[in-house]
Amino acid sequence: MKTKSRNFIPAEAAPWEPAGAGVSRQVLGYDGQLMLVKVQFSQGAIGPLHEHIHSQASYVASGTFEVQINGEKQTLNAGDGFYVAPGVQHGVLCLEAGVLIDTFSPIRLDFVR
Amino acid sequence: MKTKSRNFIPAEAAPWEPAGAGVSRQVLGYDGQLMLVKVQFSQGAIGPLHEHIHSQASYVASGTFEVQINGEKQTLNAGDGFYVAPGVQHGVLCLEAGVLIDTFSPIRLDFVR
Repeated sequence: MKTKSRNFIPAEAAPWEPAGAGVSRQVLGYDGQLMLVKVQFSQGAIGPLHEHIHSQASYVASGTFEVQINGEKQTLNAGDGFYVAPGVQHGVLCLEAGVLIDTFSPIRLDFVR
Repeated sequence: MKTKSRNFIPAEAAPWEPAGAGVSRQVLGYDGQLMLVKVQFSQGAIGPLHEHIHSQASYVASGTFEVQINGEKQTLNAGDGFYVAPGVQHGVLCLEAGVLIDTFSPIRLDFVR
């Protein structure tokens, strides 16, 4: 495992990995304390409710998502953001196919091999 | 100053701030260890060379940027990413109007009032 990414990460240089039914992800820049991940969802795909020790800040790059955080649901569209504190349960339902930019601190070690 | 953002940050709820000629930014999700910022550039706008103690991972949401990191330049397009280690000099020149998603760890205190 590398402890950090390259400085420049053209999209074609980053492998896509399956991340559940209708979901795939591409790890872009990272080091031990920060990680940026592009996650593509097909319509109806689910990011199941879960929680982790990482802070998470996400950006809706395209599509429409029903985002649930700590039991509260909101529908977010391209240009919107959300934040999940460490240990807070969250998940998404993709209402219209699209892309989330998920960022974490510290690194999601489980996303890097 | 708040120590963290709200969980849901619809685009219309986040103020735009000037960030240099042809550049404006919108702070989306953050806490003390993570911050996600949307930065809009008009064509020809510059993010001058600078450095900071934060790790930075960025995503090109739209447009085309000449990105310089540690003296090396590459042209990045929508879908590409870049990573800047703490203390490494970097900057961008916007070749085609667009948006960067800049993320930092820890928080950019200078971006929150």
